[in-house]
Amino acid sequence: MREEPRSGCAINAAVEVLGDPWSLIVLRDIIFGDRRYFRELLTRNDEGIASNILASRLRRLVGYGLLTKDEAVRGQKARYTLTEAGIQTVPVLVALGAWGVEHRPTTPALAIRAQLLAEGSPELAHDLMDELREAHLGIERPEPDKPRAADRLQQAYIEVCGRESLG
Amino acid sequence: MREEPRSGCAINAAVEVLGDPWSLIVLRDIIFGDRRYFRELLTRNDEGIASNILASRLRRLVGYGLLTKDEAVRGQKARYTLTEAGIQTVPVLVALGAWGVEHRPTTPALAIRAQLLAEGSPELAHDLMDELREAHLGIERPEPDKPRAADRLQQAYIEVCGRESLG
Repeated sequence: MREEPRSGCAINAAVEVLGDPWSLIVLRDIIFGDRRYFRELLTRNDEGIASNILASRLRRLVGYGLLTKDEAVRGQKARYTLTEAGIQTVPVLVALGAWGVEHRPTTPALAIRAQLLAEGSPELAHDLMDELREAHLGIERPEPDKPRAADRLQQAYIEVCGRESLG
Repeated sequence: MREEPRSGCAINAAVEVLGDPWSLIVLRDIIFGDRRYFRELLTRNDEGIASNILASRLRRLVGYGLLTKDEAVRGQKARYTLTEAGIQTVPVLVALGAWGVEHRPTTPALAIRAQLLAEGSPELAHDLMDELREAHLGIERPEPDKPRAADRLQQAYIEVCGRESLG
């Protein structure tokens, strides 16, 4: 874990933490997949992350202050929680998803959420961050009655999956 | 160079190309530093990129279609040109810079542009992309008389440097 960035450049400082494919994939699964435990991050990962890589990336994200690891109490598994710095990676993931949809091969079911976020951004992304603050940090959403961004994204995903299987 | 992404997820598809620290740093230097030649990318890099790493990352970015390498004619050096896919990484770099300013140690002189882009985004970022399309792809800007985003960023940078040296 590098303490001092190689330069004072803001992009470089971010890149040293976030410029790692598996760290970004783990953040994506926690943020969009609501996975908080090692085992579900391992078994439900679409890209087949290896167990030792997952362990090292979780340590790295905790070390850089993007996640905290709740102490495991007897008989319970340790749970990972996003910090505010972790939650604020949402716009980075949204920008990456928008670029991926446009410039790389993707499947409709797995690209629809990135597409919605790109189009609905920054409002949808801000709502999602408020929901993450509620779920991970216990900070109530400013508009508790507003339909959840996570539900809107999930609904769109289910609709595309339906179209694909009918397709 | 991986042809088919590990999954159809848009974020993963982007991460496989852009989730590499030195590739992002090289893109940053081309986009914000207007460097088009190997030697200036090597010698003017703030993070001290090594020659073999620069060569491999330029090859990688050309391979993924983010850059093209102009044929070197006799006595001239090869020049790198951003493609549309390369230009569209601007929002990713802007999001990274905004995160870096907020969550990592940075120096005012090197962070001011990231800060301005974060605050002025998406308009400033869009203007910058239009300027890159003009410089790299020969596509005239929609509003040729508008002050350049690159100049506005440079001006802010010089002002901060002045304040720093006055101390």
